[in-house]
Amino acid sequence: MTIREARPEDWEAIWPFFRRIVAAGETYAYDRDMSEPEGRRMWMVGPPGRTVVAIDGAGSVAGSANMYANRGGPGAHVASASFMVDPDRAGQGVGRALGEHVIDWAGESGFRAIQFNAVVETNEAAVALWRSLGFEVLASVPEAFDHPRHGYVGLLIMHRFV
Amino acid sequence: MTIREARPEDWEAIWPFFRRIVAAGETYAYDRDMSEPEGRRMWMVGPPGRTVVAIDGAGSVAGSANMYANRGGPGAHVASASFMVDPDRAGQGVGRALGEHVIDWAGESGFRAIQFNAVVETNEAAVALWRSLGFEVLASVPEAFDHPRHGYVGLLIMHRFV
Repeated sequence: MTIREARPEDWEAIWPFFRRIVAAGETYAYDRDMSEPEGRRMWMVGPPGRTVVAIDGAGSVAGSANMYANRGGPGAHVASASFMVDPDRAGQGVGRALGEHVIDWAGESGFRAIQFNAVVETNEAAVALWRSLGFEVLASVPEAFDHPRHGYVGLLIMHRFV
Repeated sequence: MTIREARPEDWEAIWPFFRRIVAAGETYAYDRDMSEPEGRRMWMVGPPGRTVVAIDGAGSVAGSANMYANRGGPGAHVASASFMVDPDRAGQGVGRALGEHVIDWAGESGFRAIQFNAVVETNEAAVALWRSLGFEVLASVPEAFDHPRHGYVGLLIMHRFV
């Protein structure tokens, strides 16, 4: 697994699994019928943020992450990030490789911490991955996510210093 | 105190205290040198969000609030809001009137809860006001705000159902 900067032309490979994940409505508080241009605008963030892709041994895009300051001004020393792994590549370490990359980036970029604002509590694989990478749950915002199968579930705020 | 929809021309009255509050860097995680056009773009939110102003007995703008869905898609049933009270009008009930208005709006608009994402913990007047209006602190994100006098302080996530 190689992580590299996303190029504009990578969006063509990201969009199919991005659309699938967003349309499923189980892990992201994004409009489930988000258009392709809106998805591109949201995901392919420009500097000082970054978007990266995870490339498998065959040269295919297996996942993507973006990263940015979570807030401005006096809050700009805390980073945040979002992750999308092709569901067909689940369990192959793609999310972990992207997560480790983001932690390294945050440290090298001078951020003091990373905060995830909205991890769906029923997304057990993600919660377990972030815990294993040193993130703690600060709070669950009760009933903040309307899950298509589980109903109203909590959104976790997760955090680690870097 | 009257609360009404903000009109585009109200920005001229909002901007002086908005700039003063943001430049002080004590209560908002916004760029402290935010330009006037950027401030206007950020504050005067369009539908489905709303911006309102608090008008005092003399017809002057004493404060303003904006309100919106905190997230999209499966998270769009939780509202959020931001508040700016002219520092020269502190302690006159402006923030309380705006807060009560936002709670009423959220209920009437079908939101299930209101979440404040980043209340600076040293902003004691705001924290006490929100507590008195039924908000609870879900968590403090440690050292997430670089206060010009107090150093790194926590950002509170506050919440109430409506």
